[in-house]
Amino acid sequence: MHVLVIGAAGMVGRKLVGALAGKRTLAGQDVDRLTLADLVSPEAPAFPGQIDCVASDLSDPGAAARLVATRPDMIFHLAAIVSGEAEADFEKGYRVNLDGTRELFEAIRLEGIKAPYCPKLVFTSSIAVFGEPLPAIIDDTHGLTPLTSYGTQKAIGELLLADYSRRGFFDGIGIRLPTISIRPGKPNKAASGFFSGILREPLAGMEAVLPVSEDVRHWFASPRAAVRFLIHAADIDTAPLGSRRSLTMPGLAATVGEEIEALRRVAGDKAVKLIRREPDATIARIVAGWPQSFDPRRAMALGFEAEKSFDEIIRVHIEDELGGLMPA
Amino acid sequence: MHVLVIGAAGMVGRKLVGALAGKRTLAGQDVDRLTLADLVSPEAPAFPGQIDCVASDLSDPGAAARLVATRPDMIFHLAAIVSGEAEADFEKGYRVNLDGTRELFEAIRLEGIKAPYCPKLVFTSSIAVFGEPLPAIIDDTHGLTPLTSYGTQKAIGELLLADYSRRGFFDGIGIRLPTISIRPGKPNKAASGFFSGILREPLAGMEAVLPVSEDVRHWFASPRAAVRFLIHAADIDTAPLGSRRSLTMPGLAATVGEEIEALRRVAGDKAVKLIRREPDATIARIVAGWPQSFDPRRAMALGFEAEKSFDEIIRVHIEDELGGLMPA
Repeated sequence: MHVLVIGAAGMVGRKLVGALAGKRTLAGQDVDRLTLADLVSPEAPAFPGQIDCVASDLSDPGAAARLVATRPDMIFHLAAIVSGEAEADFEKGYRVNLDGTRELFEAIRLEGIKAPYCPKLVFTSSIAVFGEPLPAIIDDTHGLTPLTSYGTQKAIGELLLADYSRRGFFDGIGIRLPTISIRPGKPNKAASGFFSGILREPLAGMEAVLPVSEDVRHWFASPRAAVRFLIHAADIDTAPLGSRRSLTMPGLAATVGEEIEALRRVAGDKAVKLIRREPDATIARIVAGWPQSFDPRRAMALGFEAEKSFDEIIRVHIEDELGGLMPA
Repeated sequence: MHVLVIGAAGMVGRKLVGALAGKRTLAGQDVDRLTLADLVSPEAPAFPGQIDCVASDLSDPGAAARLVATRPDMIFHLAAIVSGEAEADFEKGYRVNLDGTRELFEAIRLEGIKAPYCPKLVFTSSIAVFGEPLPAIIDDTHGLTPLTSYGTQKAIGELLLADYSRRGFFDGIGIRLPTISIRPGKPNKAASGFFSGILREPLAGMEAVLPVSEDVRHWFASPRAAVRFLIHAADIDTAPLGSRRSLTMPGLAATVGEEIEALRRVAGDKAVKLIRREPDATIARIVAGWPQSFDPRRAMALGFEAEKSFDEIIRVHIEDELGGLMPA
C-alpha cells in the first residue's frame, strides 16, 4: 500500500508518519511506500520501503495533481494553517485551507477520469466547525455553525468530502479533532495555547500564565490519541458512516481546575505553583464561545477512543515528549 | 439606491425585477438604478430610472468584478443552475453555483479594499441544504446536511455568506426557498416537476402525470411569495440574525392529495380528471428523501409570510400567469 501524508511536517503529521513507519500496516495491508508532503520537505523516518519527501503547496496550480499522479491508495490530508492565522490573514486562510483542499479533491477526481481510481482519504477537521449558541453537551446531530474563517473552511471541506465521496471520487472520512493537549513545543499566541501551556511549562520547570478562570470547560485529546484517531479512520470500513462522512472524535471534557488538579497529582504542588494567574478578558471572551463537551457516540460506536482523565493525558506527554522523565 | 440583480432572466429573477421596477423603493430608499445581469442579457422592464442589462457569467474571470465595480447598494444573487443539472454535470454545477458565488463575494471584498464598500446582499439558498435522515418537521436548529451536489453548493454558499458578513465585507442574508409551486412554463424533467405539473397542466386544460402516491408531503410557496421573501430580505435589518445569516422561509406543508383537493375546489372535477396516475419508483425514491415540513419560526418572527393553503397558491397562479382566467 502506498500512503500519502499531506501536512507531514506538522506536529500531528510527524507523529503520524512515525507511527506509520513503525506499524507498517494499514487497513489490513502492508505499507510499502510512503510519500510525505508539506510546504517544506518533511524529514524521512527510518522505513524499509520506498519513501519520498516532497515540498508541495497544494494551492499552487498543478501541485495536487503531481502528488496524486503517483496514485496513492491512502491519503491523509492534514495540511492547514491554524485558526489564529486563518483569522489574521483572510486570503491565506482561504487559499490554503479551502483552495488547497479543493485542489486535492479535484486532482483525485481528475486522476480517476484517466483510469479508475478511488483512494481512501482521511481529512482532518476540527471542533471549530461548531460555534455558539451551543448546548453544554453537543451531540452528533448538531449542525455546522462555524464562527471563524478557519471553522468555515473546515466545514466547507467536510461538505466537499461528503459530496465527492457520495459521487465515488474517493472514499472519504472526516475526523473532527478535539483541542490537542498537551501540545509539545514552545508557547504560541493561539487563544487556546494556555490549555497546554499550564501543564507543559510546569512539567518542564517553567512558569506558565493562566488567562481564564478555573471553571472554563473544554474538550481535549492527546497528540497520541490524535494519531490513533487518524490511523483508526484509515483502518475502518466507511460503509457505516452513510452520507455523514465526518465524525466528532471522542475526547475528555475537563475544566482548567481539573487540569490543574491532575497536574498536582502527577507532578506535585511545586509544579502547580508555577501557574501564574493573569486574567485576560479578550481570551476569556473568545474561549467562552467554544464547545465545552460532546456526546460523540457515532465515533465511539466505531471504536475511536480518547483519554479518560487528564492524569492520563499528562502521562502521555511525559512518555512521548519528556522521555518518561519529570523535572527534578 | 442602485440595485443589482444577478440571475435576472430566470423565472424568479424576472418576477423580482418586475416587482422592483413597479415598487421603486427598497429598504426605505428610492430605487433609481437597476442593473440586471444573467448569462443572456435580461429584458428591461418599464422603469423611469437608469437601467442596464448585462450578459455576464459570474464564473468568468473578471465578470463579477465588472458588475461590482459599479458599487451597487443592494445585490440580489439568484444565479444558479438547478438541482438536476448540477447533479448531471458535476463540473458545471461547481463552476456556476460555487465558483460563481465565490467570485461575486470576492469581488465585493476586493472592491471594499479600494474604498469602503459594504452592500447588502440577498443570497437565494434552498431547502436542498437538508437531506435525510430528517425529522417530519425540521426546525431552525437543523444543520446543513445536503445529499446532492446542488445542496452542497448552496450550503457552502451559506457558510461563505456568514463568514464574509461576519468580516464586514457585505451585509448578507440567505433565503432558503421552498419548492416553488405553481412554477409557470413548460413541464420539465426535474424530479419535483409533477408538484407543479399536476396543477398547471389541468388549469390549462391539459393532461398531467402523477408519479407518486397522494400521501407524499412536501414544502411549497408560490413564485409571488418567493419574490416577496426576496424583497422582505432586502428591506429588513439583519442585526437580529446574529451569526446565523440564512433563514428557512415559511411555506405550506401539503400532500399531493391536498394539492388535488384544492384543485378540485378551485377548478372542479373536470380539472382533477386530467391527472393521470403513472407510478414511477425512481421519482418516488428521490422524493422520499426530501423535507416534508418545517417549523421556520425565525423567519416568521422576522415577518416573512407564505401562503396558508393550496387554494391560495392556485389562485396566485391564475392571477399571475393566466390573466385571472381559467379554461372553459
